[in-house]
Amino acid sequence: MDAQLDSLNYDSAGLVPVVVQDFSNGEILMLAWTNRAALEKTIETGKVHTFSRSRARIALKGESSGHFQLVKEILTDCDRDAVIVKVEQLVAACHEGYRSCFYRRYDPDESDWKIIATAVFDPKQVYSK
Amino acid sequence: MDAQLDSLNYDSAGLVPVVVQDFSNGEILMLAWTNRAALEKTIETGKVHTFSRSRARIALKGESSGHFQLVKEILTDCDRDAVIVKVEQLVAACHEGYRSCFYRRYDPDESDWKIIATAVFDPKQVYSK
Repeated sequence: MDAQLDSLNYDSAGLVPVVVQDFSNGEILMLAWTNRAALEKTIETGKVHTFSRSRARIALKGESSGHFQLVKEILTDCDRDAVIVKVEQLVAACHEGYRSCFYRRYDPDESDWKIIATAVFDPKQVYSK
Repeated sequence: MDAQLDSLNYDSAGLVPVVVQDFSNGEILMLAWTNRAALEKTIETGKVHTFSRSRARIALKGESSGHFQLVKEILTDCDRDAVIVKVEQLVAACHEGYRSCFYRRYDPDESDWKIIATAVFDPKQVYSK
C-alpha cells in the first residue's frame, strides 16, 4: 500500500487531482484534490477523504451531509499524477443538491452555462441540521 | 461563448483541470489542463486542445498520433473551476497505447499499481512516423 501511494507524482504542494466517478454508471461526480495522507485515510476507511485547499486540511466527503462516497476502486494514470476513485455515492455529491457537481453545460447560444440536472436534495435542509 | 469562458474560475496560472471522458460509455480517458485560449480553440475546431504545462503551450490532442478527441459536450462544476469534455475518441487517448490513461488500479496486495488494460496500439510505431 505504502509503495503504491509513494509512487504517485504529487505536485509541489503534495497534491494530486482526484476525479470521483459513480461506479454504477460512470457519471463523474466531482473533481477535488488529495494528498498522500488523504489517500491513506480513503483506503483505510473505505470513504473518500480529500484535501480541502480552502480549509487547508483533510476532509471526509459527506462529513456534514452524511452523503458519503464508498470506495469501490482506485485508478491512476500513465504519469501517476492524477487519481480516479470509483464510488457508491450516497444521495448526492454536490453541496448544491445535485447528484454531480458537473450540472452545467456549455451552450454556444447562451450567455451562461445551462443547468442540465435537477437537484435531488435541498441544501438548506441538509446543511442546517 | 466568451461570457461562459470568462465565468470560469481559472487558477493563478490561468488554468483549470479538464477531464476528458468517452461520450459513448463514460470511461475517463485522461486528465489534463486547459486555459481560456485552449478552450476557445477546442470549441472553434471541435477537437480537444489542452495547455501543456511541460511545453508551456497549447497542444492539439492527437497532433502527433492523429488520435483526435472530437468534442460532444462541455460541462463545468458548481465552483466553475473544473471542466469535463465528453468526446468521441479516435483510437486511444494514452501515448502509451492504452485507450485510457487510467490503466492502473490500486491493489492492496501488491507492491505496485496493477495494469488492468490492454494496449490497443504500439507507441513505437505510431510516434516514429
